[in-house]
Amino acid sequence: MNSELSSLKVQDLGEQNLLQRLQRFCPVEIIGDDAAVLVTEPGQSLVVTTDILVDGVHFSHITTSPEDAGWRAAAANLSDLAAMGATPVGITVGLGLPGEVSVSWVERLYQGMTECLQRYHTSIVGGDVVRSPVTTLAITAFGQVVPNKIIRRSAAVVGDAIVVTGVHGAAHAGLQLLLHPELRQNLNDAEKTALIKAHQRPQPRLDVLPLLWKILSSQSSILVAGMDSSDGLADAVLQICRASGVGAVLEHRQIPLPKAFNHWLTQEQALKYALYGGEDFELVLCLPKEPADTFVQQLGQGAAIIGNITAGSKVLLHDQQQKSPDQVLSLSQGFQHFSQ
Amino acid sequence: MNSELSSLKVQDLGEQNLLQRLQRFCPVEIIGDDAAVLVTEPGQSLVVTTDILVDGVHFSHITTSPEDAGWRAAAANLSDLAAMGATPVGITVGLGLPGEVSVSWVERLYQGMTECLQRYHTSIVGGDVVRSPVTTLAITAFGQVVPNKIIRRSAAVVGDAIVVTGVHGAAHAGLQLLLHPELRQNLNDAEKTALIKAHQRPQPRLDVLPLLWKILSSQSSILVAGMDSSDGLADAVLQICRASGVGAVLEHRQIPLPKAFNHWLTQEQALKYALYGGEDFELVLCLPKEPADTFVQQLGQGAAIIGNITAGSKVLLHDQQQKSPDQVLSLSQGFQHFSQ
Repeated sequence: MNSELSSLKVQDLGEQNLLQRLQRFCPVEIIGDDAAVLVTEPGQSLVVTTDILVDGVHFSHITTSPEDAGWRAAAANLSDLAAMGATPVGITVGLGLPGEVSVSWVERLYQGMTECLQRYHTSIVGGDVVRSPVTTLAITAFGQVVPNKIIRRSAAVVGDAIVVTGVHGAAHAGLQLLLHPELRQNLNDAEKTALIKAHQRPQPRLDVLPLLWKILSSQSSILVAGMDSSDGLADAVLQICRASGVGAVLEHRQIPLPKAFNHWLTQEQALKYALYGGEDFELVLCLPKEPADTFVQQLGQGAAIIGNITAGSKVLLHDQQQKSPDQVLSLSQGFQHFSQ
Repeated sequence: MNSELSSLKVQDLGEQNLLQRLQRFCPVEIIGDDAAVLVTEPGQSLVVTTDILVDGVHFSHITTSPEDAGWRAAAANLSDLAAMGATPVGITVGLGLPGEVSVSWVERLYQGMTECLQRYHTSIVGGDVVRSPVTTLAITAFGQVVPNKIIRRSAAVVGDAIVVTGVHGAAHAGLQLLLHPELRQNLNDAEKTALIKAHQRPQPRLDVLPLLWKILSSQSSILVAGMDSSDGLADAVLQICRASGVGAVLEHRQIPLPKAFNHWLTQEQALKYALYGGEDFELVLCLPKEPADTFVQQLGQGAAIIGNITAGSKVLLHDQQQKSPDQVLSLSQGFQHFSQ
């Protein structure tokens, strides 16, 4: 990057000029009207999700490069689409910026978003840039889904297996390694890199949907319940149970963890990271045992059945190696953004 | 409102509880998943627009009640849909809030948004609420439009009449009356009320679209060019001309102004309010002279043909009562959010 670009500030350019510079991150055909026109396939429903991210609350200059902040913001929204069973159609980006932010920071943010979107064959289709005392990123993502394949939180039924598509706790571990470098000493380079990457470049699990539908193709009446684990695994199971009016039993030893946790964290810490750490962007899905087994086998790489849906409303954590009573999980144990 | 509610702050409730309280402003069927599912009609294209609004930049506690801030935010996005020829399908609302904001302020904001949306038969279909040092409102609106009826900025052709759907300058005048009460002395009550209402409760011109399509129904090959005048009438004409590679001549005396301007502002002030004031949310449309005449006659209420599309690239303001040369309009005379 040349020094002229890196010293140029948003206030030097003005809103119109900055918007023009950012248009190179968008497909040419959608630029220049009051709104973007998107094409969805006939017979599919439109799925919409929105996130607002604030500097100092949801991302930090200390632990996050602008590229990573952009990637993570895009990934979070694509993960919400995956959680509904939907394929991405595009995103819009609203950006609030203090005048003293450098133009290169903004372009690197867009670069990170675009890298993530391209990986999942989608793009930025519109946006807005305004002045704000705090850097704020508002993303709305659009997807399409065949109506009888919509994954809803409310569709879990007693007897369903609870599937996770990968390990939990890695993203939170990566964040802790960035915030507290002294924690790195008991990890080898590969372990450190993998955990930090899990935080910086989370992968929305859009890739698992075709496999899921293939396995269920002969049983079209099965409704899959689910959501993503962006607010933690415990939160995901609790939300699904609340929406479905059911309970669940989770098997402590079945929750897939990063291998490094074995020698790096106590069992209690590891469980806390997995249940409440958040931002792993895996899917938590509820479906009958037989297709769930096939799904988990074919996914490999940390996918697992971690428990079952039960009657009642309690979500219990059971540990078959211990004689202690089951632990009851509740939403208040998780993160509450305002009240912490 | 009871005093308990009015003193309750966002930080007392927490994010989850606030979201639950706000769900009463949304249709029941769309609540509780990672994303909202919307139904669009077969054969229609999806139109998407996004806006981000920041306290102290785009709205102010001094001049704007929370209900009016909500109405204006919703109206601005619906106006962008109208500008594309689209019918609303729904909006998502992302909200960044300092913990000390009162819950009643937030609920009144949603009340204002909902009032505007209901008037145009649409609703809030999803959202996000997060902590932020500054109150920030990110709205994304969705609409649907028959593909050959999309109104684009780039479709103006030489000879088109330039139509405005109503008076210009009223919203800016209303804002000035709120900021500087001493300006009110030369206006009667009805005039004051109308101008202030134009600022507080602007009307997106979705209502003109059925009339426009009816008039053009026998001439389906006509493409209408246009946008809304939210950033000022001059900006709208300049943007259309730039996107279409054409010029324009505007007739000074044809620009419809609020009647009160005659005795309240100088000619020069009135013109400045109309061209650069912004936020009138009228549509500026370019179409052949004959249907344009019919359209304006049937609209009544301030609708007018204000000029013509010409060859070249200049946008000229002509005054038939004066001997002075035509004025050349340019985008830099308008508002630039960052550089002012």
